[in-house]
Amino acid sequence: MIKSDIIAQANDAASAKLNADYDQLGAHLDRRGIDIAAIKTKVAKYGVAVPSWGVGTGGTRFARFPGAGEPRHVFDKLDDCGVIQQLTRATPSVSLHIPWDTQPAADLNSKAEEVGLVFDTMNSNTFQDQLDQEHSYKFGSLSHTDAATRQQAVDHNIACIELGQAIGSKALTIWVGDGSNFPGQTNFTRQFERYLDAAKQVYTALPDDWTLLTEHKMYEPAFYSTVVQDWGTNLLIAQQMGDKAKCLVDLGHHAPNVNIEMIVARLTQFGKLGGFHFNDSKYGDDDLDTGSIDPYRLFLVFNELVEAESNPDFNPMHMLDQSHNVTDPIESLMVSATEVQRAYAQALLVDRTALEGFQDTNDALMATTTLKHGFRTDVEPILAMARFESGGAIDPVAAYRASGYRAKVASERPAVSGVGGGIV
Amino acid sequence: MIKSDIIAQANDAASAKLNADYDQLGAHLDRRGIDIAAIKTKVAKYGVAVPSWGVGTGGTRFARFPGAGEPRHVFDKLDDCGVIQQLTRATPSVSLHIPWDTQPAADLNSKAEEVGLVFDTMNSNTFQDQLDQEHSYKFGSLSHTDAATRQQAVDHNIACIELGQAIGSKALTIWVGDGSNFPGQTNFTRQFERYLDAAKQVYTALPDDWTLLTEHKMYEPAFYSTVVQDWGTNLLIAQQMGDKAKCLVDLGHHAPNVNIEMIVARLTQFGKLGGFHFNDSKYGDDDLDTGSIDPYRLFLVFNELVEAESNPDFNPMHMLDQSHNVTDPIESLMVSATEVQRAYAQALLVDRTALEGFQDTNDALMATTTLKHGFRTDVEPILAMARFESGGAIDPVAAYRASGYRAKVASERPAVSGVGGGIV
Amino acid sequence: MIKSDIIAQANDAASAKLNADYDQLGAHLDRRGIDIAAIKTKVAKYGVAVPSWGVGTGGTRFARFPGAGEPRHVFDKLDDCGVIQQLTRATPSVSLHIPWDTQPAADLNSKAEEVGLVFDTMNSNTFQDQLDQEHSYKFGSLSHTDAATRQQAVDHNIACIELGQAIGSKALTIWVGDGSNFPGQTNFTRQFERYLDAAKQVYTALPDDWTLLTEHKMYEPAFYSTVVQDWGTNLLIAQQMGDKAKCLVDLGHHAPNVNIEMIVARLTQFGKLGGFHFNDSKYGDDDLDTGSIDPYRLFLVFNELVEAESNPDFNPMHMLDQSHNVTDPIESLMVSATEVQRAYAQALLVDRTALEGFQDTNDALMATTTLKHGFRTDVEPILAMARFESGGAIDPVAAYRASGYRAKVASERPAVSGVGGGIV
Amino acid sequence: MIKSDIIAQANDAASAKLNADYDQLGAHLDRRGIDIAAIKTKVAKYGVAVPSWGVGTGGTRFARFPGAGEPRHVFDKLDDCGVIQQLTRATPSVSLHIPWDTQPAADLNSKAEEVGLVFDTMNSNTFQDQLDQEHSYKFGSLSHTDAATRQQAVDHNIACIELGQAIGSKALTIWVGDGSNFPGQTNFTRQFERYLDAAKQVYTALPDDWTLLTEHKMYEPAFYSTVVQDWGTNLLIAQQMGDKAKCLVDLGHHAPNVNIEMIVARLTQFGKLGGFHFNDSKYGDDDLDTGSIDPYRLFLVFNELVEAESNPDFNPMHMLDQSHNVTDPIESLMVSATEVQRAYAQALLVDRTALEGFQDTNDALMATTTLKHGFRTDVEPILAMARFESGGAIDPVAAYRASGYRAKVASERPAVSGVGGGIV
Repeated sequence: MIKSDIIAQANDAASAKLNADYDQLGAHLDRRGIDIAAIKTKVAKYGVAVPSWGVGTGGTRFARFPGAGEPRHVFDKLDDCGVIQQLTRATPSVSLHIPWDTQPAADLNSKAEEVGLVFDTMNSNTFQDQLDQEHSYKFGSLSHTDAATRQQAVDHNIACIELGQAIGSKALTIWVGDGSNFPGQTNFTRQFERYLDAAKQVYTALPDDWTLLTEHKMYEPAFYSTVVQDWGTNLLIAQQMGDKAKCLVDLGHHAPNVNIEMIVARLTQFGKLGGFHFNDSKYGDDDLDTGSIDPYRLFLVFNELVEAESNPDFNPMHMLDQSHNVTDPIESLMVSATEVQRAYAQALLVDRTALEGFQDTNDALMATTTLKHGFRTDVEPILAMARFESGGAIDPVAAYRASGYRAKVASERPAVSGVGGGIV
Repeated sequence: MIKSDIIAQANDAASAKLNADYDQLGAHLDRRGIDIAAIKTKVAKYGVAVPSWGVGTGGTRFARFPGAGEPRHVFDKLDDCGVIQQLTRATPSVSLHIPWDTQPAADLNSKAEEVGLVFDTMNSNTFQDQLDQEHSYKFGSLSHTDAATRQQAVDHNIACIELGQAIGSKALTIWVGDGSNFPGQTNFTRQFERYLDAAKQVYTALPDDWTLLTEHKMYEPAFYSTVVQDWGTNLLIAQQMGDKAKCLVDLGHHAPNVNIEMIVARLTQFGKLGGFHFNDSKYGDDDLDTGSIDPYRLFLVFNELVEAESNPDFNPMHMLDQSHNVTDPIESLMVSATEVQRAYAQALLVDRTALEGFQDTNDALMATTTLKHGFRTDVEPILAMARFESGGAIDPVAAYRASGYRAKVASERPAVSGVGGGIV
Repeated sequence: MIKSDIIAQANDAASAKLNADYDQLGAHLDRRGIDIAAIKTKVAKYGVAVPSWGVGTGGTRFARFPGAGEPRHVFDKLDDCGVIQQLTRATPSVSLHIPWDTQPAADLNSKAEEVGLVFDTMNSNTFQDQLDQEHSYKFGSLSHTDAATRQQAVDHNIACIELGQAIGSKALTIWVGDGSNFPGQTNFTRQFERYLDAAKQVYTALPDDWTLLTEHKMYEPAFYSTVVQDWGTNLLIAQQMGDKAKCLVDLGHHAPNVNIEMIVARLTQFGKLGGFHFNDSKYGDDDLDTGSIDPYRLFLVFNELVEAESNPDFNPMHMLDQSHNVTDPIESLMVSATEVQRAYAQALLVDRTALEGFQDTNDALMATTTLKHGFRTDVEPILAMARFESGGAIDPVAAYRASGYRAKVASERPAVSGVGGGIV
Repeated sequence: MIKSDIIAQANDAASAKLNADYDQLGAHLDRRGIDIAAIKTKVAKYGVAVPSWGVGTGGTRFARFPGAGEPRHVFDKLDDCGVIQQLTRATPSVSLHIPWDTQPAADLNSKAEEVGLVFDTMNSNTFQDQLDQEHSYKFGSLSHTDAATRQQAVDHNIACIELGQAIGSKALTIWVGDGSNFPGQTNFTRQFERYLDAAKQVYTALPDDWTLLTEHKMYEPAFYSTVVQDWGTNLLIAQQMGDKAKCLVDLGHHAPNVNIEMIVARLTQFGKLGGFHFNDSKYGDDDLDTGSIDPYRLFLVFNELVEAESNPDFNPMHMLDQSHNVTDPIESLMVSATEVQRAYAQALLVDRTALEGFQDTNDALMATTTLKHGFRTDVEPILAMARFESGGAIDPVAAYRASGYRAKVASERPAVSGVGGGIV
């Protein structure tokens, strides 16, 4: 954790400017008939989960270049996540990946309490082999042709649920790498039948108040076909499982040019939108920082979410899921959490009565202008004020850099070599 | 129609070479344990429908360059389609587009009988305005915000069914251009609700032995969102409608890189594959000649179809749907019908027992090699012999060129100007 | 033209709010060390050309749905363009398309003077056939296999230059639809040799103070290959021609996911960036309104332009090139001109000294944050004030709608039928 | 190496069938006016290089699942490559990657002679950090902002040349991962200037009879921009360097839908095509087995190469570059070498005189049919006979499996753990 006087000191230097900006934005919004305080209240309540693995430096199949102070285990990760929440007040929960983060529940709970966090969705891992593992996932997990391998994957997912129950989680997210690299390598139909059979076993083990989230992805690690390749297949899974099963949308998992906000709308309409993995992408599953490439697309997703939030049953889970290859992961996660909040705040500014009127009369130009009016408003003062009033930092990155946190953990945690293998 | 002695003469010149090729292929297949005659019998029974509009020269939004002898009306079109069937023996049916092809049923039936064809799926058109039309489809048809416009679109579809009943059709295909060009122009959810309500009215009017086929397409004419943008939405429609509703797959209507054969497998598995529009594409909905760009992809689609054909209830409709901008449409349709047959024949050659074995043991290399073995076999002698024995031409294009048909209709049908407007 | 009292009246209603917004933005920018007046001055000097064909309703290959008051000829078009400039003060010039806009130079000059416009780049058309044309462009123009057809295309381009000289234009833009729809239809190398030979004839006829702009496009109207498919080929053309030849970048003409701002940088670095066609796209050459789909991408392009503008020789031409299918074209062009200005203003706000520092130290997070800081600033008050002070409208769309211009021209210009042909 | 009696035994079992197939194909080709022996001679002379790293099991950023008998070092790799050449007679050379394969030249030469191979292109590696490395490539290599890092990368490339000279190589291939993950992270122009400066130092060190090959790639490991992103930038590099610099085309390194064969034609036309990395892809840089996804595209590339091979100066380098994640790498490389030969043989069958005639008269249908006629011919008997007559295996995979080579090396080489890190 960062000493509170460091945050206070940083805020002192920035608060005069923030107050001026906030007051002026308030006056401007007032001229548009919008109450800035009401927006700020909603923003302050909004939170996005941080993935435990996100605080380590990511990489590609070509190389990984670790930074200083890489977390050694889940407790280091929780320390880092605690800093993110401390400074942004936007990331109250952490999502664990099993078995990477497997530790006794009591220890996890105790550490989480120490750093002021709770646990979000559990994530299973059947796309890698572990040292003590009997059956390899080289050719699949839940959809493997071999029954024992499928059972091993089912058991692992059930173990994730069990640990999750002990630490207060309420959802399991399943993403599998199962697929094929060659036409003919697998029979699409029989493979999907096996997947559904295995997933049903996991679903059966799900507590009543839990949600099963399945995640689609177009390709990678499989490069010809993937068993849950798109939202169509994901929808079929959720339909086959039952009411507790819903679809998770990762913004980077779609074919080029696909209209993602429309998928969000469709899943919402049919009660099957379960949650998000936020990130950004220019080419594929790039796992770039949320909002860094196409911030308007992120806004359009939040436009759908704000549309739907009047429905009390609508409560998808929000999580960041990024790979930080060239930045300090803590900084990237703080900025990304802010970007998610920004899109939410901008979507809240849209005049929905006017928008609906323009839609009904097919006034396309005014409809899109109405939407854009929300997007182009600079809501940074709202976000900063919400952080400030909740005890966070007006400028999280500046406060973090001032704190010397990275240098401190670098001195405590041993350096990691990034020397890679021979994969090209 | 083309005089039979012209065909006979062309065949005489080619039959010696064909016989040699066929015998040698038969001997080769025999060494692989395959009975060439059995394959030929299946190929001879296979037919793909021709679209009435396909015999006219197509164009782009930039220009259209008509050829000589453009058909003036549905009767000219049926003449041209008759020639295609006469020479290829692979296209026994024609699919009409309404209102372009609207004529008294008796006249249509009589002409069809004359040229040796029957009628396939009916196609409605609510993506263009007609001269006598009360409400414009500029902002949508089945999903329009205006109830009267939706009703007009519903009524038009029902009229298509009624005409179809009088000419022996058993299916209606609906494709709408409804969508939006701007974010915010339409509310995705309310638009889709309107679509579903209207489509249900059409579905209700459907005779018991008919199928309703809905067609998805990623974009164009709408360039930001389209109401039936992908197979996920298409599946939802078919589910909402009922058992008589199924999904139509046009090979050119997907996002870049999408694995189409997998979509075919998924829809088949859940009983919702209704039919195909065959064509090829390199960039978007290019409507290029089937098999001209990626013949292996076409083969992989047929691999799924052959996999499924043991199920007696599996009977999707097959149609060509192409835009012939630089070729004689009759020639392109003949070659394309042959390409579809070719993919079917190649898929029939695959050793499915061996394939299943390699799949079960995750022998990816031998599985894909087994598939490729079917694809790389040159089955032209089988196709040509099937045509020859059914009274068609060994080389349809050569026979067609020898017949002088194009010059003849060019002298009968007035020249059409291609001078375009100012659309850029 | 619109009566000035209507504009004045609309501005009166909006000026108090604008003054407040402008003052507050000024104060905010002052806190960031930026002089708002200096930005406003640059914005006020900035202009983007309007294409004459842009004021007509566009369409797709499926249909065109004309609006009321479609311009009948170039003089109507110039009237409409005059209104755009009158209200936005951002579009001082018009780009003509020949032969659509062919009229005596004196008449064009006189009309332009009347509506307060000058002429930008000339555009030739060899992608359509004209009524009086000897050779068809069905199979190409500058790269056609037939020498006489190539010569006809060369002559047409030279005629465009001649008319352009008489009306004050200084550049010719060539875009050809030449390409192929089938593998093998054309020999890539020989086709490009023919293109280069023909283009050199046009280049030779170019006055010394003119620029030849060639435009690349990935596909459409040709759907397998296009002779100038990307900036690589476009660069080769400009290199082969000479110093007066440069490349034109249309934002919608690239492969999916391509980094367009990087192409802008490369062409700039090697002195070959000639100009832009601004628009937006989600799927292909959608010709949607500039900034309507991905406003950050537009900003990133202007970031490159602002980087380069310190070079006195850097002076690319800026033009809108859009297809307005569902909006009033005048409104879309006004909003788009504003979006281009917006991106320019936002790019001007970037602290380039800080940015360069972060780049040099590989501080990726702060570098991208610095860029985003410019983008997320709401510069609308700067744009509105620049318009207002130049005699334009604070809110151009509102003033335009208040003026009743569309109804007036609808009463003067006959209605146009959108009933389409049978292209599918 | 595999004992020759095992190969002989496998061939004995297959030769009767091969003789029958070869004779029949010969008769068929004779009817088409083609001399099968001449084709076979050309095929027998054709060779494609194998990459040393290709014989290890590849992986993704998510996981790597090693197989049995993974090579431990370059000598094991050369053993494996020797087997590939022994059985296929199509892969006479190996391309080394430095520093992975760094060993004394004498040892490399001696081992190569032992296994019957020579050395192809040298490959440098500045996309990973090595243990003894002073400066990290995390933020770039040849284009790094830091001069010392650039110099380190230059020196490494020069060291590759020096080793290459000692083992008979004649070319250096440079691919860098340099780029950026965030807009603004790097200045495109200054980064490319640094790249060009550094590359020129390498070029200066190049012996007169060497070629410098630079490789473009759209994205990955950098996910927003890459310094050599496409063939346009690659061409600029080759132009800036000089005559010994040429462009390398990896089939998987392009944007979706890009027409690769056209790029091959353009680079050939301007004397800048230096070589190929063959593989296949469905989504991105998938590095799938050559010809496994789109064999017609591979054929179209070879169609361009056969077009150009009449030019005596045309001599691009051919190499496989794949990642074998789920197959035995030796098997995949053997099959891929065969697929490259197959495309070459099919392209040799095209009647180029007829093709040129159809192109000149714009007979698109017959032109593309002429091309397809080559493609759809099953040339397997030619390939098999060429192998057989050169001492290779009629069916390389069957012979390899019969040999027990994999089990043998698995017993000699220690098992490798695939337990991965925490990169997601």
